[in-house]
Amino acid sequence: MIVIFEFSLNKESDKTLYLQLYKKLKNEIKNNIPADTKLPPIRKLAEKVGVNPATVVKAYNLLAEDNLIYKKVGSGSFVAPTQKVIRPETGENMLEHGQIKLSENINLASAAPSKELFPVEDFKYAINQVLERDQGEAFSYQKSQGFLPLRKSIQKYFMNNGINSSLKQIQVVSGAQQAIDILSKILLDFGEKIVVEDPTYFGALQAFNSRKADIITVKMQADGADLAELETHLKEKQIKFFFTMQNFQNPTGVNWSFEKQQQLLKLAEEYDFYIIEDDILSDLYYNESRVKTLKESDEKDRVIYIKSFSKVFMPGLRLAFIILPDKLLPELLEAKYATDISSGGLTQRAFDFYLREGLLDKHIDLQRKLFRKKYNLMTAEIKSELPAEIKVVYESKGGLYLWLKLPANVDAKELYQAAVSIGLVFSPGYLFSLNNIFSNYIRLSFAAVNEDEIRKGIKLFKKIYYEYLGKEIDQEYSPLL
Amino acid sequence: MIVIFEFSLNKESDKTLYLQLYKKLKNEIKNNIPADTKLPPIRKLAEKVGVNPATVVKAYNLLAEDNLIYKKVGSGSFVAPTQKVIRPETGENMLEHGQIKLSENINLASAAPSKELFPVEDFKYAINQVLERDQGEAFSYQKSQGFLPLRKSIQKYFMNNGINSSLKQIQVVSGAQQAIDILSKILLDFGEKIVVEDPTYFGALQAFNSRKADIITVKMQADGADLAELETHLKEKQIKFFFTMQNFQNPTGVNWSFEKQQQLLKLAEEYDFYIIEDDILSDLYYNESRVKTLKESDEKDRVIYIKSFSKVFMPGLRLAFIILPDKLLPELLEAKYATDISSGGLTQRAFDFYLREGLLDKHIDLQRKLFRKKYNLMTAEIKSELPAEIKVVYESKGGLYLWLKLPANVDAKELYQAAVSIGLVFSPGYLFSLNNIFSNYIRLSFAAVNEDEIRKGIKLFKKIYYEYLGKEIDQEYSPLL
Repeated sequence: MIVIFEFSLNKESDKTLYLQLYKKLKNEIKNNIPADTKLPPIRKLAEKVGVNPATVVKAYNLLAEDNLIYKKVGSGSFVAPTQKVIRPETGENMLEHGQIKLSENINLASAAPSKELFPVEDFKYAINQVLERDQGEAFSYQKSQGFLPLRKSIQKYFMNNGINSSLKQIQVVSGAQQAIDILSKILLDFGEKIVVEDPTYFGALQAFNSRKADIITVKMQADGADLAELETHLKEKQIKFFFTMQNFQNPTGVNWSFEKQQQLLKLAEEYDFYIIEDDILSDLYYNESRVKTLKESDEKDRVIYIKSFSKVFMPGLRLAFIILPDKLLPELLEAKYATDISSGGLTQRAFDFYLREGLLDKHIDLQRKLFRKKYNLMTAEIKSELPAEIKVVYESKGGLYLWLKLPANVDAKELYQAAVSIGLVFSPGYLFSLNNIFSNYIRLSFAAVNEDEIRKGIKLFKKIYYEYLGKEIDQEYSPLL
Repeated sequence: MIVIFEFSLNKESDKTLYLQLYKKLKNEIKNNIPADTKLPPIRKLAEKVGVNPATVVKAYNLLAEDNLIYKKVGSGSFVAPTQKVIRPETGENMLEHGQIKLSENINLASAAPSKELFPVEDFKYAINQVLERDQGEAFSYQKSQGFLPLRKSIQKYFMNNGINSSLKQIQVVSGAQQAIDILSKILLDFGEKIVVEDPTYFGALQAFNSRKADIITVKMQADGADLAELETHLKEKQIKFFFTMQNFQNPTGVNWSFEKQQQLLKLAEEYDFYIIEDDILSDLYYNESRVKTLKESDEKDRVIYIKSFSKVFMPGLRLAFIILPDKLLPELLEAKYATDISSGGLTQRAFDFYLREGLLDKHIDLQRKLFRKKYNLMTAEIKSELPAEIKVVYESKGGLYLWLKLPANVDAKELYQAAVSIGLVFSPGYLFSLNNIFSNYIRLSFAAVNEDEIRKGIKLFKKIYYEYLGKEIDQEYSPLL
């Protein structure tokens, strides 16, 4: 399809002709012309509107800069498909998930801990103590790298968890999402190649997309990403970093094996790339002993480590930490400054107080017990209630996520819509991938629900699943005794 | 100068030759080769290392993508000057400014209000009331658009200040810097053209640079930016937005005239661009009546309005607001999500409480009186103490900044270094511009100092100024009476 334009330019105007032409074309393209329509050849259009071919070239160049048109070598210019940096459908869905009222739904989508578990009184005490002590200082601009005593207390926390880092390597940020965003700023130029696990965390994809990264995916396996697949890519392309969640990955729940961790570190050294380890869940192991972070084994300073407590503490505080290699420090500091100057003063100070009082460790221990119970309940309910064709893909004894595979003919997005209508929400799998291969997967989380809701939720899921398949569920009767 | 390489590739390796070559060249360029050195022609290098010319082309392309080399049409490839997205010297300087201890210096650099003026007790009361009321809810993830009651109370605040907006147009962010950063994300692709006032706010330049914008500058005049100069650019280039501070601009203190505001709005309509109005100081007018924001006159929804209270309230809270045109709302919400999910819950709620109690207006009235006094004192001290060749360029009766022009032969950066050594800091003018035309300008602020320090600071400035010129100051003796 080719398009013919019917307009003329104003040669009396003091606006240059090519800008006039550019605006007219832009307007047409945005409003009237479908994607992949061919634009008139340069000479033809020049003749038609009575200008020099160079004028058309300039106008087309501006349109290409706007990503409104693209050129195919030897065949001319075409209207580009409407693109947004972030896939709108996905974005809006996830935002909706975040905003769901717990009271109205059974929420198996949210991975945010339920607010009843927050240590509000303890933290209120911390805030008041800090305000008494620091007064207005707590409300001043803070250092961009973060409140020094907090950096010291989190350094100690890391050490107790097997991670040694120098104080200057620790940066305070406003949550793990900000960590990902700031790291993208310093590491990614447009078109830079990176690798992510497939599927992976939705918000990370958004941040990488916003820097127009060239995102390569490698598939997840029961013991971590497929490293053979990774190496195939590494042999062909220089990548900037590999983004990974090593423990109880979002959304699969996968826990990397120690062997694969060692292999990954070796690959990073051999093929010269960074690893960004996003650790939000390593504290939630349900076997006896804690799991290993990649950072613990990182002797060559290849791992940029993000630590957030938002899944076990209070996400509304918006606090997280980055440990990063020395040579990235100045750039990171500048990027933090350009992002929001510094993180909030009061929350940094109160969290520091809370850490020093040893309250965080106690709180996490408690959370681990509660979550373990819910994990066991949910896996049991899935096994006893749901038909055998629905499978938990990986069982990792930790974290907040269960990744379920449904039969290939089930569209999880349609299932989701049916579920919403009866007050149940979960996360359809397609949200977590750039590839179109998870349409029959879903992620269930038990973070925001209590035991009753888990039982009810799985029953409701069964109901809509059978309805979707057009099957009826047997009515259950109990004998009157 | 041309460089000759002495290395060979491993043809037995399973890494592709062009990646091997790319890495070797990258390593050489980063460590050994000065900027603007010419690289060997493609054929020569191909012969030398025994590969296909296509292999060299691929390697050179990767280096160009990394911005390590640049091509001159017809003359080959050259080593690029070391570039950082953000000019490192500037960045580090500004960060130092933000971190200076008031107790050790007379700080005429910082525009942060001194912490003695913060209403700590009132805000502590607000925090405790909110925690009593909202409990764990205050520490949950918040909606990405912001806490609804806060959006309502700030809408009312805007209305009282002449700005009408719908509720859905209001977005809560973590400070004005984050507002600039997020707006850059949704509006700027690499190479997009924008216009800024010259000089302008340092942190804005950082954010725009981080998106690799093509930044055009127009000079400031006593009544606002030079709109004739702006229009010259508009006739030639399509710009995405004009970034401006309409009232008591940073660093010049300039207050736009109503006439120029109207002209600017007309230009935006005619040449189809947005205006980002960064309003951090309109509350600090020292004449009888308040000044006009551009947003008040914005009938066509051209103005994206950023409002922060960090200069009159408590900057460590990290809160600000954006009013933006309807059609940008979905993208903004997604960008906020990808940036840090949401702003902190407790601070949003406490600030809302504080607003509703009418405490902010009272606090700002008080601040205005205090700042007016300091403004008058500082301008008087400059006039009485400093030699006539040092001029306050614009006098606008408002804000926190005085922009001083020194004689052309004075290098303000050298003067700054001399000043630091005797415990005085201010902002050298070059920080606020991409052009090299403000080397003999400085910005003084009286935000963080008391009246005594203003007097002492100007005297110290006089001292180092005369020392810099190699002049002696008359020793002053007072008669013993």
